[in-house]
Amino acid sequence: MHPIEPSFSTPDSPVSIAAVAEHAGVSVATVSRVMNAQDGVRPKTRDKVLASVETLGYRMNYLARNLRTAESRLLLTMVPDIGNPFYAEIMRGINSVALQHGYFVLLCDTGADAKQERSYFDLLRTRRADGAICLDPDTIQHASASDATGLPWVACCEFDPTVAVPYVSIDNQRAAGDAIRHLLERGHRRIGLINSDERYLYARQRQAGYLDAMTAAGLTPRPEWCKTVQCLDYAAGAAATLEMMAQPDAPTAIFAVSDTLAIGVLSGLRQLGKRVPEDVAVIGFDDIAVAAQINPGLTTIAQPMRALGETAANLLLQRLHAPTVPVPGILLNHQLVIRGST
Amino acid sequence: MHPIEPSFSTPDSPVSIAAVAEHAGVSVATVSRVMNAQDGVRPKTRDKVLASVETLGYRMNYLARNLRTAESRLLLTMVPDIGNPFYAEIMRGINSVALQHGYFVLLCDTGADAKQERSYFDLLRTRRADGAICLDPDTIQHASASDATGLPWVACCEFDPTVAVPYVSIDNQRAAGDAIRHLLERGHRRIGLINSDERYLYARQRQAGYLDAMTAAGLTPRPEWCKTVQCLDYAAGAAATLEMMAQPDAPTAIFAVSDTLAIGVLSGLRQLGKRVPEDVAVIGFDDIAVAAQINPGLTTIAQPMRALGETAANLLLQRLHAPTVPVPGILLNHQLVIRGST
Repeated sequence: MHPIEPSFSTPDSPVSIAAVAEHAGVSVATVSRVMNAQDGVRPKTRDKVLASVETLGYRMNYLARNLRTAESRLLLTMVPDIGNPFYAEIMRGINSVALQHGYFVLLCDTGADAKQERSYFDLLRTRRADGAICLDPDTIQHASASDATGLPWVACCEFDPTVAVPYVSIDNQRAAGDAIRHLLERGHRRIGLINSDERYLYARQRQAGYLDAMTAAGLTPRPEWCKTVQCLDYAAGAAATLEMMAQPDAPTAIFAVSDTLAIGVLSGLRQLGKRVPEDVAVIGFDDIAVAAQINPGLTTIAQPMRALGETAANLLLQRLHAPTVPVPGILLNHQLVIRGST
Repeated sequence: MHPIEPSFSTPDSPVSIAAVAEHAGVSVATVSRVMNAQDGVRPKTRDKVLASVETLGYRMNYLARNLRTAESRLLLTMVPDIGNPFYAEIMRGINSVALQHGYFVLLCDTGADAKQERSYFDLLRTRRADGAICLDPDTIQHASASDATGLPWVACCEFDPTVAVPYVSIDNQRAAGDAIRHLLERGHRRIGLINSDERYLYARQRQAGYLDAMTAAGLTPRPEWCKTVQCLDYAAGAAATLEMMAQPDAPTAIFAVSDTLAIGVLSGLRQLGKRVPEDVAVIGFDDIAVAAQINPGLTTIAQPMRALGETAANLLLQRLHAPTVPVPGILLNHQLVIRGST
């Protein structure tokens, strides 16, 4: 093991950036570029500078820079479930834009500990992070109803149109309508909905889209065709399916509001010996990568996950660079992707 | 939009923590607890303190604390592909241990930009982060062969036993052997291997496990039964399967070294009209959540993903708290999980 020597025992390091530059035989600007991880320094020079930094015990210029610029160069990303590929793909979009602009992304797994939620926003209040992108619908709702609306953050997917927090999402009502119209075109009349909790705007919008399309087709959906789940995972989709299919006159088609739920629906139907799509058709939402891999392939409403992440990051950067300029809410396009499950 | 007023225009804020305490009518210790996101402060008190912080323009105590303790309270996690549920589950383990100990996890998506790799270690060199956990086998190899071995980081899954970098992994050779012995017990003799590149230790160990088990059964695997892929995703698994099955005397069973690959194998076999497990049996590696959901369920070697992440984080914390004490390498147990695909 090579121990790290604690080279800096006092808060006020007596070593200046000029001393490092002299020791390494380079300019102060070059030392600064190395310490700020900027391009344009040859690897050899970089190594020489870092060797001098270590030898002399120079440090804290980041913090000094932070003191001057009041920037941490950290962006928070709050996700409810990093195990859900939907969020992972969005995070990839956020991360790529952040890196391009010299920011690092701090992962905040809000699902891991609800108590942390408040302390994540405290990172903004105390300027340990410059801004945040929130993907957790619960956190978005809590923060939208609190003084956190004054902090630099962006809502992604879920949002509250009544507060001045920038957001990016899709038109959830129309997207859900498109899913149902596809099932109607396939001849289905008894269509089940497995939805997220109605306390979320996106869940209410998707339910409205479902009802719109059913009503337009002259159908009155029965309340027992609609199931609410508290968690959008495989197990929840399977459990809701077993309940739904236990009814008399059970649906011949099921719309689940995430692909993870829909994959659970396929699993539940298999347990019941139902064939997909012959006995029951299934449509999901998101278009995570595995949706194209399973058998049958999952028909779904594709969300532009990467673009959602990139747009959220760009909105946040706009907000940070010009705090007084209003940042618009943005709705991106969705797309129906037809595969074997319908 | 509620703009954030840049309340702190000078690096040396004249407002002391004592002034905040007086303004809020609380003790200095309470202000300190709030600013350090510690427990034991009532929400009302917390809000009062933060209001005073904002009113007075107090800030920078984090940075001052950093100057004193030389700690950033940030841990890096370098992942090659956050879209792979295997890494997401490990990250969840890392994150939970980090939060318990008052650290935040900085996400470093090494797959996004290989050039960033070096700059992530520079975050350690310049003490912007306290330590790192690396899950990217390429990065682990590069860093193990560089002066980065002296920095506080831990290798997870892939490792280099010849350098003094703490690691956690599983016994890859025995795990691969267990997969092959399971296929042999099912009566298979022509067994294909879809493996990662042999430049990685884990790939060489899994190949050794494959060869051990085949040889012990008196079989001589043909070279054309072994395919190497550069990326462990669905598409790579499907492509390798199409190649492998195009041979005369094609394998009757395939061992793919990740579940994502194996799900691609199932997809490839479906394209070829092959039934699983009747025509070809398939076994994967990892036991990501979706492996139990697909049809047929995927037989696999389960890695203890969450425990890998938790152990990696604990090893790193040990390293940080006692830099001179050698930290051991740890191998956790794997498990054969039998489902419908074999």
